[in-house]
Amino acid sequence: MTGLQDALDGRWAHVRQEARKQLAGSHFVAVPGETIEQARARISRLITELPTDPGVGAAFPKEYGGSADPGGSVAAAEMLAQLDLSLMVKAGVQWGLFGGAVVALGNEQHHATYLPDIIAAKLMGCFAMTETGHGSDVQQLRTLCEYDPVTETFDLHTPHESARKDYIGNAARDGRIAVVFAQLITGGKSYGVHAWLVPIRDEQGNPLPGVTIGDDGHKAGLLGVDNGRISFDHVSVPRAQLLDRYGQVAADGTYTSSIENDTRRFFTMLGTLVRGRIVVGGSSSAATKSALTIAVRYGESRRQFTAPGETREITLNDYLAHQRILLTALAHTYALTFAQEELTVALHEVQTAIGDVDEHRQRELESRAAGLKAVQTWHATRTIQACREACGGAGYLAENRLAGLKADTDVFTTFEGDNTVLLQLVAKGLLTGYRDAFGSLDGWGRAAFVAEQVREMVLERTAARSLIQRLVDAVPGRDEEVALTDRGWHLRMFEDREKHLLDGVIRRLRKGAAQKKDRPFDIFNDVQDHVLDVALAHVDRVVLEAFVAGIDRASGDTKTLLSKICDLYALTTIEAHKGWFLEHGRITPARSKAVTGKVNDLLKQLRPRMGELVDAFAIPDEWLNSAILREEVGRQESMAAHDDLLSGR
Amino acid sequence: MTGLQDALDGRWAHVRQEARKQLAGSHFVAVPGETIEQARARISRLITELPTDPGVGAAFPKEYGGSADPGGSVAAAEMLAQLDLSLMVKAGVQWGLFGGAVVALGNEQHHATYLPDIIAAKLMGCFAMTETGHGSDVQQLRTLCEYDPVTETFDLHTPHESARKDYIGNAARDGRIAVVFAQLITGGKSYGVHAWLVPIRDEQGNPLPGVTIGDDGHKAGLLGVDNGRISFDHVSVPRAQLLDRYGQVAADGTYTSSIENDTRRFFTMLGTLVRGRIVVGGSSSAATKSALTIAVRYGESRRQFTAPGETREITLNDYLAHQRILLTALAHTYALTFAQEELTVALHEVQTAIGDVDEHRQRELESRAAGLKAVQTWHATRTIQACREACGGAGYLAENRLAGLKADTDVFTTFEGDNTVLLQLVAKGLLTGYRDAFGSLDGWGRAAFVAEQVREMVLERTAARSLIQRLVDAVPGRDEEVALTDRGWHLRMFEDREKHLLDGVIRRLRKGAAQKKDRPFDIFNDVQDHVLDVALAHVDRVVLEAFVAGIDRASGDTKTLLSKICDLYALTTIEAHKGWFLEHGRITPARSKAVTGKVNDLLKQLRPRMGELVDAFAIPDEWLNSAILREEVGRQESMAAHDDLLSGR
Repeated sequence: MTGLQDALDGRWAHVRQEARKQLAGSHFVAVPGETIEQARARISRLITELPTDPGVGAAFPKEYGGSADPGGSVAAAEMLAQLDLSLMVKAGVQWGLFGGAVVALGNEQHHATYLPDIIAAKLMGCFAMTETGHGSDVQQLRTLCEYDPVTETFDLHTPHESARKDYIGNAARDGRIAVVFAQLITGGKSYGVHAWLVPIRDEQGNPLPGVTIGDDGHKAGLLGVDNGRISFDHVSVPRAQLLDRYGQVAADGTYTSSIENDTRRFFTMLGTLVRGRIVVGGSSSAATKSALTIAVRYGESRRQFTAPGETREITLNDYLAHQRILLTALAHTYALTFAQEELTVALHEVQTAIGDVDEHRQRELESRAAGLKAVQTWHATRTIQACREACGGAGYLAENRLAGLKADTDVFTTFEGDNTVLLQLVAKGLLTGYRDAFGSLDGWGRAAFVAEQVREMVLERTAARSLIQRLVDAVPGRDEEVALTDRGWHLRMFEDREKHLLDGVIRRLRKGAAQKKDRPFDIFNDVQDHVLDVALAHVDRVVLEAFVAGIDRASGDTKTLLSKICDLYALTTIEAHKGWFLEHGRITPARSKAVTGKVNDLLKQLRPRMGELVDAFAIPDEWLNSAILREEVGRQESMAAHDDLLSGR
Repeated sequence: MTGLQDALDGRWAHVRQEARKQLAGSHFVAVPGETIEQARARISRLITELPTDPGVGAAFPKEYGGSADPGGSVAAAEMLAQLDLSLMVKAGVQWGLFGGAVVALGNEQHHATYLPDIIAAKLMGCFAMTETGHGSDVQQLRTLCEYDPVTETFDLHTPHESARKDYIGNAARDGRIAVVFAQLITGGKSYGVHAWLVPIRDEQGNPLPGVTIGDDGHKAGLLGVDNGRISFDHVSVPRAQLLDRYGQVAADGTYTSSIENDTRRFFTMLGTLVRGRIVVGGSSSAATKSALTIAVRYGESRRQFTAPGETREITLNDYLAHQRILLTALAHTYALTFAQEELTVALHEVQTAIGDVDEHRQRELESRAAGLKAVQTWHATRTIQACREACGGAGYLAENRLAGLKADTDVFTTFEGDNTVLLQLVAKGLLTGYRDAFGSLDGWGRAAFVAEQVREMVLERTAARSLIQRLVDAVPGRDEEVALTDRGWHLRMFEDREKHLLDGVIRRLRKGAAQKKDRPFDIFNDVQDHVLDVALAHVDRVVLEAFVAGIDRASGDTKTLLSKICDLYALTTIEAHKGWFLEHGRITPARSKAVTGKVNDLLKQLRPRMGELVDAFAIPDEWLNSAILREEVGRQESMAAHDDLLSGR
């Protein structure tokens, strides 16, 4: 285990190491080219064989056999993502979403009754929130659940097709029970969305009366996950099946809750489920690491054109264009790893804190989770695509794994929150300090389930606060005198961009609010691109600060190498936004050109370390399961021998 | 048929209209979620049912039942791409690559013997060029074919595993014969790569003696195409099977050719096959149009969040961020359609010209084909991905078609020439005028199969030469005085970028050549990113000029609308490169910001036309075969009715 691996494995290194041992070999690894039936059968079998300690049970309370280690459960999920993304998602549905909802929203009685079987994968369940007609706007779900004090039961009903539950994991095949989200109605009044534990299949696997189950069928990827559709035709649900931690219905139908406001209550309920989003972000990065390992190792052995007059062997990785893609992606992947680690720590601390949850920290956690999920999943989609292309035709064959990684991760940009919606949520959090300026004009959607509560997160420091402030303060006034690799300068550039974009959007919103009072939608929509830029700039800064904190924890050679990777991350990010920096006089044309020169220089310096950088991801060869990695080296050797023969004759 | 459709359908509108008729209904349309066996069986069957006139036979000589219409054959292939990309690729292998090679490289005898059965799909064949160890550098193929004057046969041999033919369409299942590319050796001397017609399977479909056939197995997409691997163990090939148009071997082993130089001969042979690359580019755009049609129509009917205080229905397409993605992609797709049309006309004119081929035009054609293929395939990958995300979870389900479009088109960025290699080829063409400056330092690969012959293509005008010059000349000296939608200004900005990038790369190469004489690879590699930028800037200009020419051919409302779309294309391209324009003082910060404002303004103006813009692609509903388009409208209606009820109680 190298220093680099240590730095990446982070606080839950023991969980990761344990997974590398417990799940060693190829037993749990994705099988390319399966039919949907084969994939579902295999994953349904494997899901019952997963170790629960420190694996899928990590997040559950100790009294039910868990280890009360939410951070560890995120790390464990990331490891599953390197084996098989279907397995990760299926586990995420069972233990994260379904089991997590029972823990977070249920009472002691629910816990005692259900958790042991849930943890042991004896009771497979669904998390039935999304509806066909409503993806992102979950507060507006149309499924109804009305209480009748005479029978002391709820009547659960799907009023029309667009209210059917859709894309629900575990629904098409394995789920026996579901946590169903619906509008709670009692005494003729609606109290907003709540959740019930509702059996959907009998022991033999047949749908229960009143329950109609459909199959979402073939998908782009994740074939091992049985997504389906569920509709309810006036299904009777006993009162005790309401997961009533945040809202209770008495036998006579009286509704009580410790949280007065329906919206606030709903978002508090959702807030407890933030872990799912963090797992999706982390899993995307985990898959990205698999793809990069394959592409970099292939590029290391694969010779391209003969270079006339060269005695050196030129491999794909020697090409600047190849480095521009793979090394830059590696640097961003490293950066995101430190940010994900920091986020996981924050999650862990919030969810293991004794006493009342600090609402401010909870909102900040949700915002960070949303932003990092968006950035990590888009990074995954782009990078895995680039890795596929970097391996040419070989990258397209299923046996080389990249096709599967690409297809499986693709949905992550829109599930557990659509990325665009999530970024608006982040921006809204940043804007909240200014909300008096435009009152309740909530035109761009009620996406923001934290919006109303977040306060003053603007430029709040992430980790290593004092270190970062010191670095920023040390930068002299005039940029031209500062080295391009000065960390304080990077930090200041990132911070400046975020701050200025935010100021600008506020100015524009104020102006819009004054001019377009009768068109609230337009006020926000006219600046939506600007709003998304604010969110992205914010996430960029959070990521850079996490990287800086991570470097600070390392030492020796590891520290030096990480610092160089951070230079590449920071400068390629500045380069990507050079238009903005130039428009706003934050950089001179000469310095902007110098940034590109410095990036190319860093690529040259890091070229010999490419292999090392992916080795530090420490993904076992069997997990990579890529035919080209097994074959390419041998091929190149036999070809070289043949060429020697040819040139000798 | 609208004016807009007219403009897009272009010169081969009759071929497109005929295809919409001949291939109407769902018979030829992709079937989501098939197994690889099902897909192969279906495509192998359908391939024999395709109309040959004006379809897959279009490019063949009239005496064998073709219509000698190479341009028409490109249009016909693009139509197949909207039905099923596996069908298009399988047809491309059979009639384009395999049949095309027999036409271009064979003699009269070969034509008479094989073409009738090839055209009728009675003789299925392969185009066996690529080897496992050599993708892009086809001049360095390792398969050997040595002539023996005693037996008057060639000995075809695969010397090692990396020399096996790989990714060969039609190989794994249907191919009976293959055009095999190998190093021709006679009299102990090698004459470079040539092609032979080599039977690989018997009547029963079993591999012939000495021929080993493998299966590339499951792929990311294109499941209906049976890609495979072929190795030869000293297979005896009769002398007459050499496709000897450009190089002949007499019975006694004497080699003759009208083209002295081996390299030049080889690239002349390859040049005749340029159509395949044009078909891939056009097919990518055709698939992009299918994806955009689905996403835009879905976004038109799908309501997102409720907008408080709004009486309007807000649909996905009303969001600026959605328009930023879909409308911008539409504008670029329109632009590429005009460029593809211009390229197809150029192909048609070169390949139907009487007498000797004008070498200069041939090289220009190859360069344009390379550049446009790269840009169109990357545009397809990005846009189809964006369309998938724009449809959320629904976009991930196979039944909605986007998953398949994405998976199938993905390989196009690296097949028929890796995009990066192709762009280097384009750049090399542009640099050739300057080649004396750095002599034969061919360090960044021998990719460029036109390189040595291209001359003075720099800033040569595409179509509508005088019109474009007039527009450019009309722009006043100071940009600040020019309207942002002034076409002359757009043209000048594009041209300026190309010219300046080219000048810069030449300067850097000269400097490098002086300093690094002993490291030829580094001279080019150090500026590879810059070289690729030159090529992209060149293609951007070619595309814009083609768009301008296309607008000039239209009239009335169509002309006005196309002009607005062209504004959006030009300004989003300038916006994407604003960093460069600012760095080089080509635009002021204030004007750069104004560009973004103007883009958003154009999006607002074009928002109501989105439906019309995709309707003009004229893709039959059955061809789109997308469940959400069939269901979404009905769903929205039932939901709206329900909401009315709810709000009434």
